[in-house]
Amino acid sequence: MTEPLSPAVTICRDLIRCPSVTPNEGGALTVLEKLLSANGFTVSRVFFREEGTPDVENLFATIGSGSPHLVFAGHTDVVPAGDEEAWSAPPFSGEIVDGTLYGRGAVDMKGGIASFAAAALEFVRNRGADFGGTISFLITGDEEGPAINGTVKLLDWAQKAGHRFDAAIVGEPTNPQSLGDAIKIGRRGSLSGQLTVTGIQGHVAYPHLAKNPISLLLRLTSALDTLQLDAGNERFEPSNLEIVTIDVGNPAFNVIPRKAEARFNIRFNDEWTLESLKAKIVETLDAAADGAPYELAFRPDASQSFLTRDERLIDALSVSIEAKTGRRPALSTGGGTSDARFIKNYCPVVEFGLVGQTMHQVDERVDIRDLDALAAIYGDFLERYFPQG
Amino acid sequence: MTEPLSPAVTICRDLIRCPSVTPNEGGALTVLEKLLSANGFTVSRVFFREEGTPDVENLFATIGSGSPHLVFAGHTDVVPAGDEEAWSAPPFSGEIVDGTLYGRGAVDMKGGIASFAAAALEFVRNRGADFGGTISFLITGDEEGPAINGTVKLLDWAQKAGHRFDAAIVGEPTNPQSLGDAIKIGRRGSLSGQLTVTGIQGHVAYPHLAKNPISLLLRLTSALDTLQLDAGNERFEPSNLEIVTIDVGNPAFNVIPRKAEARFNIRFNDEWTLESLKAKIVETLDAAADGAPYELAFRPDASQSFLTRDERLIDALSVSIEAKTGRRPALSTGGGTSDARFIKNYCPVVEFGLVGQTMHQVDERVDIRDLDALAAIYGDFLERYFPQG
Ligand SMILES: [Zn+2]
Ligand SMILES: [Zn+2]
Repeated sequence: MTEPLSPAVTICRDLIRCPSVTPNEGGALTVLEKLLSANGFTVSRVFFREEGTPDVENLFATIGSGSPHLVFAGHTDVVPAGDEEAWSAPPFSGEIVDGTLYGRGAVDMKGGIASFAAAALEFVRNRGADFGGTISFLITGDEEGPAINGTVKLLDWAQKAGHRFDAAIVGEPTNPQSLGDAIKIGRRGSLSGQLTVTGIQGHVAYPHLAKNPISLLLRLTSALDTLQLDAGNERFEPSNLEIVTIDVGNPAFNVIPRKAEARFNIRFNDEWTLESLKAKIVETLDAAADGAPYELAFRPDASQSFLTRDERLIDALSVSIEAKTGRRPALSTGGGTSDARFIKNYCPVVEFGLVGQTMHQVDERVDIRDLDALAAIYGDFLERYFPQG
Repeated sequence: MTEPLSPAVTICRDLIRCPSVTPNEGGALTVLEKLLSANGFTVSRVFFREEGTPDVENLFATIGSGSPHLVFAGHTDVVPAGDEEAWSAPPFSGEIVDGTLYGRGAVDMKGGIASFAAAALEFVRNRGADFGGTISFLITGDEEGPAINGTVKLLDWAQKAGHRFDAAIVGEPTNPQSLGDAIKIGRRGSLSGQLTVTGIQGHVAYPHLAKNPISLLLRLTSALDTLQLDAGNERFEPSNLEIVTIDVGNPAFNVIPRKAEARFNIRFNDEWTLESLKAKIVETLDAAADGAPYELAFRPDASQSFLTRDERLIDALSVSIEAKTGRRPALSTGGGTSDARFIKNYCPVVEFGLVGQTMHQVDERVDIRDLDALAAIYGDFLERYFPQG
């Protein structure tokens, strides 16, 4: 005889069983649509298409009215399973072995969605739809892909539909080791660029007739690679630049090549704006080039760093986490980008979800007690965020 | 009414009309075989084959007996014509326009062979086969290719056949601007190597979990690129190192790559042996690496520098050049490698031929007066080298 599964575990397992590898909906949004509409939410399925990118389905669901308006943001799409043979349980089976639920998306982030859905349904069941505010779900199917037909357009759609958000929680896995480790309250910005140096091709035996572009590219990339941008601050880790590739593609040992290229990416903190950072890069490269010509192209997909300063939101979530785990979460700004970088343009945003260790890996999995604990944290937070009148 | 063509021009045109692009014989060796055997030379066609390389035909021809034994070395194979539409005359037509003979191989080096053949035939005609020594032709069809089935094996074959050379002239184009500019009396050595640095792949947002191999590779390649090996000497230009390629091949801006590679080539003078140079490179890299692991592989096709010290050979050729051109040639050791690097293991070797400006290019061509002048220089040299008893 086994115990019946909790709501959070049941929803998570139902979602994992939908093979919603980006950009496929895979049935996952339908699972949510049925669940939320059956419990009083107004649900919209929102479809975006754009020439040259995959079509993507998204979902917006809302209940209640007026302020404060809390939006929970997440994604049902998942990265591919990888080597399916290497999994302990089939990646879309949702098998539970010794209290652990296996499956692609278990922690990134069907589990986070399931825990919040379980918490929100219970909250609405207890408090009714007239709980003194609004709760919405903003769920995309395009977070792991090009992210063009997902959160960005869904936010715009919601705004045009008249929704004004006061705060957002993103349910991405934010905890490095155990539930309660960390809330993310901001992210570093990201800036990528490409360097190109053009010389004159020639034979290695006649270097005076040629001009090797590699010499200048080495000076430029070395200057970037050894650049100390800042030492970090109490809010952010130090900014960091990585040369991610250098390519010449010359197969001949006796030929001086014509062109050499390098690419770099910078993750930068709030000591910099995009503008001041670009200026610093140009200044550094110009000093290294010493007048020699080179081409620099920054990629258009740059993002600014951001830091959420909504103390009420951060405090309420921190207190709920401490109440349920006994541990005060760190307020982190580390790690990679997420859709929070888009949401922050609409309202204060924090991120808190499951433990991220197995995300994107074979045997992605979640302890089912974590799903219930996360639902309890979210539930406690909802009570604090929408206090009884 | 046009003047009849001189012997050197006629032979050169006959050779150009053979499309002997490496490794094809194209009829060129047959032209030489007929010409030389009809004039008293003993001619051997020598065929070499080796698994994994193209079969190549070569030719050895000899006349006279005893010492001194002078060998003229050259190649009838040519590089491809390139864009045939861009040529002023078809590249294998041997057309003469306004005193200029056009064609692939005109200067590199069917012209050199033709001028020496014309000179040698006249010399033998005047002096008879009993001229007090031996003259041989060592002609390969594999100089522009992998050079495996050419000069190296033909030298070995000749030695086994009992031939002992006292001096060699290679007829490669040695003059930068005009006939008489320079004799080559040696060459720099060549050493190539590959550097590989292996790190740990990861996401740019989590650099502490990854190890970017590019940082170390930049330190290593920068150390090589800025290394001053020597200042040259009265015999040789300074040694020179070129980084010829750096390749990572990482398409993703958000990924720290696992591996980075670079290749370099060094042209070095007689201040170095291969051993002392390799030791210097290792010492330089070790200092830059400061204990960090890297892989270095020197390529097996390295060659030592060499310098010909046969004053009689060099002086006789210089005097002949000055006698016919009015200019004393420079004694050069610059430029790329040639088959002289193999011949120098058998006897003193010098190189002198036509003007190299158009070699390997579209519209490779030679002023027909240069062909006759070069034949006159070679003829004068033969008289000096084999003085009448
Ligand atoms: Zn995610
Ligand atoms: Zn040549």
